[in-house]
Amino acid sequence: MASLRAEDGYRLWLRYQRVSDAALLQTYRNSLTGLYLPGASPTIQAAQQELLTALPALLDKKVPLLQQAQGASLVAGTVQQLGAIAGVIPASALQQAGTEGFCIFSIAAPVKRIVITANTDAGVLYGVFHFLRLLQTQQPIQPLSVVSAPGIRYRVLDHWDNLNRTVERGYAGFSIWDWHKLPGYIDQRYKDYARANAAIGINGTVLNNVNANALSLSKEYLEKTAALANVFRPYGIKVYLSARFSAPMEAGGLKTADPLDPAVQQWWKDKVKEIYSYIPDFGGFLVKANSEGQPGPQNYGRTHADGANMLADALAPYKGIVMWRAFVYDAKADQDRFKQAYEEFKPLDGKFRENVAVQVKNGPIDFQPREPFHPLFGAMPHTPLMLEFQLTQEYLGFATHLVYLPTLFREVLDADTYEKGKGSTVAKVIDGSLEGHTISGMAGVANIGNDRNWTGHPFGQANWYALGRLAWDQSLSPEKIADEWLRQTFSNNPDFVGPVKKMMLASHETLVNYMTPLGLHHIMGYSHHYGPAPWYDKAARADWNPVYFHRADSSGIGFDRTASGSNALGQYTAEARRQWENLRDCPDEYLLWFHHVPWTYTLHSGRTLWNEMCYRYQSGVEGVQQMVRTWDSVARYVDEERATQVKMLLNIQLNEARWWRDACLSYFQTFSGVPLPPGVPGPAHSLEYYKSLTFPYAPH
Amino acid sequence: MASLRAEDGYRLWLRYQRVSDAALLQTYRNSLTGLYLPGASPTIQAAQQELLTALPALLDKKVPLLQQAQGASLVAGTVQQLGAIAGVIPASALQQAGTEGFCIFSIAAPVKRIVITANTDAGVLYGVFHFLRLLQTQQPIQPLSVVSAPGIRYRVLDHWDNLNRTVERGYAGFSIWDWHKLPGYIDQRYKDYARANAAIGINGTVLNNVNANALSLSKEYLEKTAALANVFRPYGIKVYLSARFSAPMEAGGLKTADPLDPAVQQWWKDKVKEIYSYIPDFGGFLVKANSEGQPGPQNYGRTHADGANMLADALAPYKGIVMWRAFVYDAKADQDRFKQAYEEFKPLDGKFRENVAVQVKNGPIDFQPREPFHPLFGAMPHTPLMLEFQLTQEYLGFATHLVYLPTLFREVLDADTYEKGKGSTVAKVIDGSLEGHTISGMAGVANIGNDRNWTGHPFGQANWYALGRLAWDQSLSPEKIADEWLRQTFSNNPDFVGPVKKMMLASHETLVNYMTPLGLHHIMGYSHHYGPAPWYDKAARADWNPVYFHRADSSGIGFDRTASGSNALGQYTAEARRQWENLRDCPDEYLLWFHHVPWTYTLHSGRTLWNEMCYRYQSGVEGVQQMVRTWDSVARYVDEERATQVKMLLNIQLNEARWWRDACLSYFQTFSGVPLPPGVPGPAHSLEYYKSLTFPYAPH
Repeated sequence: MASLRAEDGYRLWLRYQRVSDAALLQTYRNSLTGLYLPGASPTIQAAQQELLTALPALLDKKVPLLQQAQGASLVAGTVQQLGAIAGVIPASALQQAGTEGFCIFSIAAPVKRIVITANTDAGVLYGVFHFLRLLQTQQPIQPLSVVSAPGIRYRVLDHWDNLNRTVERGYAGFSIWDWHKLPGYIDQRYKDYARANAAIGINGTVLNNVNANALSLSKEYLEKTAALANVFRPYGIKVYLSARFSAPMEAGGLKTADPLDPAVQQWWKDKVKEIYSYIPDFGGFLVKANSEGQPGPQNYGRTHADGANMLADALAPYKGIVMWRAFVYDAKADQDRFKQAYEEFKPLDGKFRENVAVQVKNGPIDFQPREPFHPLFGAMPHTPLMLEFQLTQEYLGFATHLVYLPTLFREVLDADTYEKGKGSTVAKVIDGSLEGHTISGMAGVANIGNDRNWTGHPFGQANWYALGRLAWDQSLSPEKIADEWLRQTFSNNPDFVGPVKKMMLASHETLVNYMTPLGLHHIMGYSHHYGPAPWYDKAARADWNPVYFHRADSSGIGFDRTASGSNALGQYTAEARRQWENLRDCPDEYLLWFHHVPWTYTLHSGRTLWNEMCYRYQSGVEGVQQMVRTWDSVARYVDEERATQVKMLLNIQLNEARWWRDACLSYFQTFSGVPLPPGVPGPAHSLEYYKSLTFPYAPH
Repeated sequence: MASLRAEDGYRLWLRYQRVSDAALLQTYRNSLTGLYLPGASPTIQAAQQELLTALPALLDKKVPLLQQAQGASLVAGTVQQLGAIAGVIPASALQQAGTEGFCIFSIAAPVKRIVITANTDAGVLYGVFHFLRLLQTQQPIQPLSVVSAPGIRYRVLDHWDNLNRTVERGYAGFSIWDWHKLPGYIDQRYKDYARANAAIGINGTVLNNVNANALSLSKEYLEKTAALANVFRPYGIKVYLSARFSAPMEAGGLKTADPLDPAVQQWWKDKVKEIYSYIPDFGGFLVKANSEGQPGPQNYGRTHADGANMLADALAPYKGIVMWRAFVYDAKADQDRFKQAYEEFKPLDGKFRENVAVQVKNGPIDFQPREPFHPLFGAMPHTPLMLEFQLTQEYLGFATHLVYLPTLFREVLDADTYEKGKGSTVAKVIDGSLEGHTISGMAGVANIGNDRNWTGHPFGQANWYALGRLAWDQSLSPEKIADEWLRQTFSNNPDFVGPVKKMMLASHETLVNYMTPLGLHHIMGYSHHYGPAPWYDKAARADWNPVYFHRADSSGIGFDRTASGSNALGQYTAEARRQWENLRDCPDEYLLWFHHVPWTYTLHSGRTLWNEMCYRYQSGVEGVQQMVRTWDSVARYVDEERATQVKMLLNIQLNEARWWRDACLSYFQTFSGVPLPPGVPGPAHSLEYYKSLTFPYAPH
């Protein structure tokens, strides 16, 4: 059918289109006349297969695989495999490459060739993918002297995938894991998933939802998981599982899951031993405990450290790790949910085993369009903290809104905790350099489903791509990542890349403006989080209600988290706090995160809060209108299928941006009592209409 | 990625591979030098687009689209559009073609050309697809004098798809209807679905589950449905909806859904009017009422006819129809569930409006691997009966078992009701010819999901294909359909087609043997129907338990439905009944459907019942072993991806066939008390083991 031959987005950043620049194509062809990969491991075979798939397509000519180095203009292998050939690579470069990094050098003597080498097979594979990225993005390959190593050790995707193949907060179809047919049926998609991840440096995947099911640890499901691990292993990807804390009771028949109970400890030791019998390189556990109804150590009067350490002790003999989530809030929430994770975890600093990392969301609430950095960053110097981003757009328009997240990621990584004075950025906390941790990690909650293009929105792929690239290299700019991604995904044509990159880079601020400007947060539809519902106040818990978060009344709007309010700001270092605590200095972007502000208060723009809010919502809508225009102007550079897809999605986004503006302003106006300023059109419907909308089958 | 360029099954029977026979290719090229389609309707444009996609690929050369007939060697259009060009077509042929059929004639004068014509645009489209099928299956196209018209008017797929995208009894992923993103986002798949169906003559699709949700009738969902209807319309496909009988209460706020209540009648009239405002060619309603907990007219003391007629009256002004299902069984079931549909519907014969068809499953229980034909066929001469087959393999091994269903379909169509004496086949009942009905219909419960290859198993596509082809032409043999399908789907190579066709034709009997030989039925796992569970007896209703259906005890096994038992046989005509009612004459295939038979009873084979049962189970397993061998011997003719997929699936099927044999024989042996005969290996596990297996996340 037409769509098979069309670009349906399935190939992600591994499209390997013929190089469009004629001169460069000739250079590449001249430089790449024969391959030699002396290694024989499954990982080297994977690298070889990738080269043999990619090069003929990129160069539109055959590139022979040779049985010896002679005549090979591209060689790839570990230092050991290459022997004398690798002698030209400086020892310092190899040292810098470490266990996963690589070196790519073009050399002139004894023969002219390009050498991709590393200390490990995985490093070679990453080097090959890096080299193919150079070709796909049409970069010069003579001369080359690349040395690259990941700044973060655990680079992980978290799949919130259930055993019935629903995906919690999944907007790209359903789980790509077809548990029922595993282990007998191996979907081609599993291998392509591994390839796509290896190409961006992802080296771990948590297969199941953090709201976990003990059945995932059963023999039957371990056999299924092992089948996936076998597919992923050659690509350097380890499998992890979310562990349900009460599994010893549900699966083991014990009467308790108390982490200090010897029988419970033994059950986990036996279970871990069993897991490693199926999966010798199993990565470890991710745990959500005592949060949103999940069981945990606190059920038995124990701490998160007690719980994590029990699992860590079971995993330690096999080099497995525990990723223990700090996203906790429970029935006895503080007056401000913002504060709970810090209050529970800060006192535990130093009490975790060496193979435990505490996984902290980027912000204190829950993956909002913009949040201040999480106060735990910089507050637990004795504990490796993993950073958890959310790729799936739970609060950011699902898979129908184009929002390029690296802008948000960059804000978080560059945020300064001041833990050890100026420059103690979140990036330095999580890469372990600030405190000298050997464990370091970055995780992204996957936006992947069984939609043909993996992420629902073609541009959602960019966020998956960026997670891998940033976990590898924390210094990358959003612009650089967008440039790479666009060239590989769509086109190297500068007339396309330029405008679309600009559109991507502006998209996050645009979304913040039409959804939650000025520090508003968590005003989405109840439970499913689809669309605006700032009026909602019927949830069972106060802190599930939008009204809890915006606190609008006739005097103003916003959550006072200063010392006069909940004092959540007190959880930050004084220097970090200083940027937000004073209403006068607080950047507009964070205003309503920290202050309850009068409607008539004058902002830095010179406008009142009310007028500024109106203009921000309006500018969000106009931002999407600009995106629509941009895409219309460049769509001709793109295949028809994806051009049409993006166009349809941008139109949905525009309609929903208007919906957000109209619904939120109509509602907040009932408090401000002030008319809309000039240039902000009146709402299309009444407030009652917006309140009446229900979405019983919105994905959630 | 590799798999994009590979054959992943997405293209179904529309692959349009280059013609492999060199001589034939030359003939085709010589015959097809230019196209002319004078029509301009969306349907003619669809036909034109299909030719422009297919011909260059099939012929590996450009075939110009001309603006006039001169020079065109292939012309396609209605008689009106073609004018004088169509003059060569005999009037009798056009009369025979009717409203949906077509004529394809090769003519020598005034110029040598091929003419595809019809009385309607839809007929032209069907003719084009027929012509492309000739090319794809490498048939001669000179001379051609084809006249073809569908034997059945309503050729329908029933999707049991829920609004949350789960599919009841779906084994190929999730619903292809992405309701949340509709109407704004039109998946390419919707169009390809329409193309694939048009190619086989399907002209209707029921989008939502018969266990229906009133929300499907809401304004919001009608807008979504209308967007799908717009995609399907050019392809001659009408949209239908399953209507929830209690919608006037749930969606309309009425206090009753009594079909004789004027307010209820008015609600449906208004609703139907609203539907047609969105979808001017809406097909009508499918209704499951008073069955398995669904609401219906009996809730108000009314009959199925009362309910159906109310809806029919609302639809009549717009030419819509009601498909009212006869699959009913409710709490007050007869001692034999077999009998309920007949008991409820037979008395209503003649009481339905003209635009009502009663939709009857092929057999009296529920889509078992083999059933006798439904006793309603031949029992309701005054009512058009639609035949409902199940393509999705609820009771036939899900999407991991290769079973070619046309063998089963053929058995049903050829079954003789003797309603008007010998030759009163089910085929003649449902095509309307026996009683002169103008409404005739055949429906298949779809086996389609969002798996890349649509049906999960590559061979599942054949059953979808066959439903369309048989609904068009009830005389087609399973062999002919398999031949066509294999050539289009895999290869024209006779060394491939021959053995694989043989494998397909044997597959149904093989499955019956390893699952439910000798007339056993409904002994699958409770609720999900996965795997064997003949021992199950815990269901809330007696007739949900396998033990209800097999009735094994130490004296024998089987359900006595003769006059000495439930007398379900009394629902058939005497002539039809005669083949089954006498134990001596009853064919082995139906033995345990109608008789409780002693274990020691000697069958036609000369073996005891117990030994014959053992041999049948064993021969089922051996049949699958033969399938594995066959596929291994021909896999080289197939692309690697699909070859590997089928191989993995056949291995799953083999394992599950052994599981069925071992579990069933272990269990039934506790009654027969007799050892396994020679040649039947002992079970791999204990009966307790098989009983202990649970599948909480089996698709269901």
